[in-house]
Amino acid sequence: MKVNETKKQILKALRECGGYLSGETLSNQLGTSRVSIWKHIRSLKEDGYVIEASPRGYRLVSSPDLMLPYEFPGLEQRIHYFSEIGSTMDAARELAKRGTGEGTIVISEAQTRGRGRLSREWLSPEGGIYFTLVLRPKISPAYASRINLMVSVAVAATIRKLFRLKAELKWPNDVLIEGRKVCGILAEMDAEMDVVNFVNVGIGINANTSIPQFEKTVTSLKGALGREISRKEFLSALLMEIERQQPLLMKADLLEEWKKLSVTLNKHVRIVAPGEVIVGRAIDIDTTGALIIKERNGSLKKAMAGDCIHLREEVPNTDIGAVSRQ
Amino acid sequence: MKVNETKKQILKALRECGGYLSGETLSNQLGTSRVSIWKHIRSLKEDGYVIEASPRGYRLVSSPDLMLPYEFPGLEQRIHYFSEIGSTMDAARELAKRGTGEGTIVISEAQTRGRGRLSREWLSPEGGIYFTLVLRPKISPAYASRINLMVSVAVAATIRKLFRLKAELKWPNDVLIEGRKVCGILAEMDAEMDVVNFVNVGIGINANTSIPQFEKTVTSLKGALGREISRKEFLSALLMEIERQQPLLMKADLLEEWKKLSVTLNKHVRIVAPGEVIVGRAIDIDTTGALIIKERNGSLKKAMAGDCIHLREEVPNTDIGAVSRQ
Repeated sequence: MKVNETKKQILKALRECGGYLSGETLSNQLGTSRVSIWKHIRSLKEDGYVIEASPRGYRLVSSPDLMLPYEFPGLEQRIHYFSEIGSTMDAARELAKRGTGEGTIVISEAQTRGRGRLSREWLSPEGGIYFTLVLRPKISPAYASRINLMVSVAVAATIRKLFRLKAELKWPNDVLIEGRKVCGILAEMDAEMDVVNFVNVGIGINANTSIPQFEKTVTSLKGALGREISRKEFLSALLMEIERQQPLLMKADLLEEWKKLSVTLNKHVRIVAPGEVIVGRAIDIDTTGALIIKERNGSLKKAMAGDCIHLREEVPNTDIGAVSRQ
Repeated sequence: MKVNETKKQILKALRECGGYLSGETLSNQLGTSRVSIWKHIRSLKEDGYVIEASPRGYRLVSSPDLMLPYEFPGLEQRIHYFSEIGSTMDAARELAKRGTGEGTIVISEAQTRGRGRLSREWLSPEGGIYFTLVLRPKISPAYASRINLMVSVAVAATIRKLFRLKAELKWPNDVLIEGRKVCGILAEMDAEMDVVNFVNVGIGINANTSIPQFEKTVTSLKGALGREISRKEFLSALLMEIERQQPLLMKADLLEEWKKLSVTLNKHVRIVAPGEVIVGRAIDIDTTGALIIKERNGSLKKAMAGDCIHLREEVPNTDIGAVSRQ
């Protein structure tokens, strides 16, 4: 959906006024005809805005809990909004290839072919928050995983701030509440060896969704809080938090923040990465975001990426029975 | 240029025979009409093949020193050949995005918009060797720089084997002869944080070219040998060498090979990377291909990427005058 400038201005005026605004006043303020005002009001109503029309004028009664661009003042021009899409990652990739700027955001209310890491499916029913952010940091691709760390820190911080829920981080980039996944992050990059061209970060948040078949491993904000949340408010706070974190991308502070929120450090883990499996105690992350693991024999291994399974306790590599898949 | 199967078969038959082959024999062997044989012979002549036609039949007198697919038996179907193109990188990227297989090769005799690292121009007149190889290794993007190391090792090894020239490697991925650049390598990748989707490696070799305006820093195989080389023979040997190196991509052997050929190790260097400059002695490379530098104060720094300038001797950071740009 393209942002309609007139609709944007009408909403802005109605919000600032707070009460009734006559068609004539709106028409004068916006420099457009009253018929045009009327048409755009009708279109806003179709979007889900409740606008009262009385002899005293128009009044904004309520806004829908949709993540429409109009709900993110100042960012409207950077947002590409869909009520449903195959995958926000695919749309963002097309935009990024055609040169769209840093900070472009593709939002959808639902995805029909949502993607997770390693070509897995990401169930994306209505009620969740699905968006992809296009970033163009001037960093070597070796540091690209720090973007995942940064975004996961921002998601956890936003959940903690807004809802006082103890959101924690599982390496490489899951956000958990009480050990269950509430947010998944997927990043795709296009790079030379020297410098990143773009990194698209896809963020899927189980907001007001419930996916009963996975309830052992997956939760939602609604599930954790016992009530629905305002998705637009959450997304607005999250986008601000990401903006706040961005200058820290290459700073040690980011790694410290991540470590504070991490539930992976000091755990016994099994990392299944392309071509290797590492088992041992997670003791640190390095500057590229790689997990450093101390094996039973004391040697140190680095996991650049992969699936991380938290083990209940130190177990022999062969004792599969003791593995707890979180 | 698409590979024409009939032309491929005619060349194969003429080469295997070594002498004269009648139109009738060819027609029977290939199961096609004599008119078709005649047409395809004419087309081969237009490509630059010298084929004698006499009452005794057809005879292949000579092949042009072009990198036509027919010159790489067994690889024809993987080769996309151009006599001139904007950039083999751009063409390979389009192919890779559409899912072309590992090992696809885009070759061009010349490039009009040849690209080097960091959006620099790569002069690509006729006489050079310009190609891009599409690779799809199952590795984390953090290890992608090893592909550059591998290809640069293969180029140096091929030059040493074929011409007994002392080709050496400069970090991150230049091939030098007597301190002057004979080959540049550019890699572009498309990846998730977990796994590479594709890495396209562009290789530009100054074969029979001479670029007088850069002769202080750039050489060519022709310049170093004092004679022209057969580009198709070189490329054929190089492609075989890369194939030989591929299983070593994630093995320690690759790093050892690179170190043996390196002129950067033990040199004092200045690395100009996105967002930082590191000055010190290059003492090693790590498993991701990053250069490890010991600064004057003894602390170790890692350069993931960037421009590497070999310094003549240990100089204070401020003494720009002593820098030798190779």
